[in-house]
Amino acid sequence: MKKLSILTGMLLLCITTFAQQALFGGQSVVSPEVHENNTVTFRFTAPKAIKVQLTGDFLPTQKMETQFGTVDAPGIADLKEGENGVWEYTTPSPLSPELYSYSFIVDGVRTTDPNNVYLIRDVASVTNIFIIKGGRGDLYSVNNVPHGTVARRWYDSPTLGMSRRVTIYTPPGYEKSAQRYPVLYLLHGMGGDEEAWIALGRTAQILDNLVAQGKAKPMIVVMTNGNAIQEAAPGESSLGLYKPTMQLPKTMEGSMETSFPDVVKFIDNNYRTINRKSSRAICGLSMGGYHSLHISKEYPDMFDYVGLFSAAIIPNDNVESKIYKNMDEKLKIQFGKKPKLYWIAIGKTDFLYQANLDYMKKLDENNYPYTYFETDEGHIWKNWRIYLSEFAPLLFK
Amino acid sequence: MKKLSILTGMLLLCITTFAQQALFGGQSVVSPEVHENNTVTFRFTAPKAIKVQLTGDFLPTQKMETQFGTVDAPGIADLKEGENGVWEYTTPSPLSPELYSYSFIVDGVRTTDPNNVYLIRDVASVTNIFIIKGGRGDLYSVNNVPHGTVARRWYDSPTLGMSRRVTIYTPPGYEKSAQRYPVLYLLHGMGGDEEAWIALGRTAQILDNLVAQGKAKPMIVVMTNGNAIQEAAPGESSLGLYKPTMQLPKTMEGSMETSFPDVVKFIDNNYRTINRKSSRAICGLSMGGYHSLHISKEYPDMFDYVGLFSAAIIPNDNVESKIYKNMDEKLKIQFGKKPKLYWIAIGKTDFLYQANLDYMKKLDENNYPYTYFETDEGHIWKNWRIYLSEFAPLLFK
Repeated sequence: MKKLSILTGMLLLCITTFAQQALFGGQSVVSPEVHENNTVTFRFTAPKAIKVQLTGDFLPTQKMETQFGTVDAPGIADLKEGENGVWEYTTPSPLSPELYSYSFIVDGVRTTDPNNVYLIRDVASVTNIFIIKGGRGDLYSVNNVPHGTVARRWYDSPTLGMSRRVTIYTPPGYEKSAQRYPVLYLLHGMGGDEEAWIALGRTAQILDNLVAQGKAKPMIVVMTNGNAIQEAAPGESSLGLYKPTMQLPKTMEGSMETSFPDVVKFIDNNYRTINRKSSRAICGLSMGGYHSLHISKEYPDMFDYVGLFSAAIIPNDNVESKIYKNMDEKLKIQFGKKPKLYWIAIGKTDFLYQANLDYMKKLDENNYPYTYFETDEGHIWKNWRIYLSEFAPLLFK
Repeated sequence: MKKLSILTGMLLLCITTFAQQALFGGQSVVSPEVHENNTVTFRFTAPKAIKVQLTGDFLPTQKMETQFGTVDAPGIADLKEGENGVWEYTTPSPLSPELYSYSFIVDGVRTTDPNNVYLIRDVASVTNIFIIKGGRGDLYSVNNVPHGTVARRWYDSPTLGMSRRVTIYTPPGYEKSAQRYPVLYLLHGMGGDEEAWIALGRTAQILDNLVAQGKAKPMIVVMTNGNAIQEAAPGESSLGLYKPTMQLPKTMEGSMETSFPDVVKFIDNNYRTINRKSSRAICGLSMGGYHSLHISKEYPDMFDYVGLFSAAIIPNDNVESKIYKNMDEKLKIQFGKKPKLYWIAIGKTDFLYQANLDYMKKLDENNYPYTYFETDEGHIWKNWRIYLSEFAPLLFK
């Protein structure tokens, strides 16, 4: 057996990767670089480019005309070319603690940052992320605290006639204890799936940290797939690696609500849950808020805690499903049973802001109690992470 | 409450994404497009680009000079500009069933495909993937078969003095049965972590499919982190979102091997395992093959099945750890206990090919039985997926 030193061996092991990276135009610059004062420098190597830009949710938004009217769109900043074709941009001021996302635009073409492997998918778009530590940034980070377990598992939905994928967070210590736990059902928005909250929403990090700080009770969090047509997220079903879309059938026509008891039953049968209303919460963002509204009123003995995050409040008398019939009557029954918390959150510039104000007016007129939480900005994941961070500590107390 | 139709509501929900995509230079072309005859068309919109190229593992490799000598590097193909700045390339012939990866190179700058959200990270590089169905392509696909559960969980390693993350696949039916299961420990290579096999290796798909076909026994698969310095994969520990590297300390100096019983103990204490040698297998790729070799000889009563996939066979008398001392003596003890399977696989162009031949010569000289499986090509994930697909059916029979 030929004698090779460990070092030579390691060098040999690196060759393939080295060759591949060199060929792939691998970049050795650092990007993003978060400085001590929380300003951030972005770098991109493109010696032949005419223009390199950056777009991200930390840049001031700009007004954009669309066929639906004027909307807020993420801002754009120009990078400046330096030596060796390395373009650079540093934020003019420190960024607040937060999880941010961004992309480069090279001569008009959007591209991910080849120096940053941390990417998240939102429907059909993939962007890079980075975190500014402190405050909420710490809440979204993995810290040296006990960690829960995250499982991707399949369950049978007899109502939908299919096996479906679900993401389940069990709190730190779940496996070792004999304890029973309350359950939060956490629902995504249109175009999302059972991967949305765990990736974009940082659910595991938020819960690990809130529990470690003693701010939230240990709980099981169930992240369902709210598209009744889907078995699983894009790429995770037998449909293969297709392009995700927001235009799915069977999202807001009653199937999700009708089939929801299937997943609750599965969870209660397979996990050490506290199987009663006072230990069950449901919340969701946008379409998931719509689902939470309807599921909680349809099964008024199931959830004592309801959270509507930037909820789509859409009356739907024109849909056939019985779910949306007799809404006033069902709300009366739901609130007659005095849910412990009915929590509504929305951002001031959300296009669903007025619809939520109208809905709260309706609740007021009927003396149905609720808690309102308002933030700046609009229909964005930044807000939904904040809402989860605020809502979870209020549960099961 | 204002009456809105469902349709209007859905359109409103799409605005934010629409605006964002338009701004991000969102592309509406289809890429990659797998045609019925298994040729594939790649498209990329870049009206201002001078040159758009494609690199991927389905293109003929090219020789590349490096400081370590000539190595095989992935091939490159030129796209041709068509209307509206859409560049296009179609493979000249059909591709065989397989999981492939690729990137675009726009004016020398590597970029991911903005029309394909399916990405995998290999150390510090992110590339797009697609699958050609049929044969092995089907084995790597999610099919309409019962699915196992994939959990990311943390365990205590008293030997390393840290809590560590591990990826665990439990087979379909695990949760419902009272049955005990055999366990395969599946180890990654240098620069990898507990995410490598589940993402790049398609472990869950391969096992789900092999079990459904009756070709492999249902088994628990444990994907550890083999970098003794790490608590978890990059981005999954308190070190934050740093850039992954292959140059890690404490990878091949004995710590992984010394601490390995910690994870075996954890698994046996927390899962319904068959806690004996004949129901335990260990295998790994490259550095993971090195770890498998040393762990299996160090604990000769632990594993009846051993798989070395493109293993780094590196004598290491110059390392202090007791793990690497008295190798001949330990191998004699291991083979004296007659392991059921000692399986060695490598590709003909692997830079570790000769070292593996030398190692087999050593085994032959001592009349230690083993099974050899040889493939074309080299030190690449394509081979490691093949090796897992071939090795798993041989286990626990």
